[in-house]
Amino acid sequence: MKIVDYKDIEPTRFDNDVAKGVTGRVVIGKADGADNFCMRVFELGKDGHTPCHTHEWEHEIFFHSGNGEVLSEDQWTPVSPGTAVLIPGNGKHQIRNRGEEPLVFVCLVPAGAPEL
Amino acid sequence: MKIVDYKDIEPTRFDNDVAKGVTGRVVIGKADGADNFCMRVFELGKDGHTPCHTHEWEHEIFFHSGNGEVLSEDQWTPVSPGTAVLIPGNGKHQIRNRGEEPLVFVCLVPAGAPEL
Repeated sequence: MKIVDYKDIEPTRFDNDVAKGVTGRVVIGKADGADNFCMRVFELGKDGHTPCHTHEWEHEIFFHSGNGEVLSEDQWTPVSPGTAVLIPGNGKHQIRNRGEEPLVFVCLVPAGAPEL
Repeated sequence: MKIVDYKDIEPTRFDNDVAKGVTGRVVIGKADGADNFCMRVFELGKDGHTPCHTHEWEHEIFFHSGNGEVLSEDQWTPVSPGTAVLIPGNGKHQIRNRGEEPLVFVCLVPAGAPEL
């Protein structure tokens, strides 16, 4: 069994042309023996956002803290702690922080997708 | 895309010989087209606990709110918001609330396991 506070895992930061203020951590993955799906935790800083992109694999997301919005095709929808989101494979998507505090969410991907 | 507050999903309650004060919801599953893994959200009321049991499939868990403990084999470990837990297949496990507020956690299982 692995028991870890996500903040104790070394973060990877993304700040580039397509992602802003994003911190990602693989909290449960193949290195832990999790062969079927992978849990990552992301933090978006104030005004931060993930890339607007599309890929073959799905996301299952749970919003832990903060307030933001999710883009589904061309529609932005508010999300807050307790919101769950399924982004199907090949669906265009993006997530952005719309609050003052970090937007923190768990995002899981199936085996075969990049872990981070 | 599915976007839902977990509290808007009809809950299933478990209160029996082995589980106490447990509310479970399938928030993302096969009915939504999620074929690889399933997201459930559980709430344990004050003094609530899940069954102490073992099964072939793994759990990937993220604790959202409240304070509790996880049993791994014969060791109880405290968990709180932000704690992630991997329970490997065939590992004995149990979760209990140790606070005054509900203990809320996301628990994912691979395809092939019961969704609830």
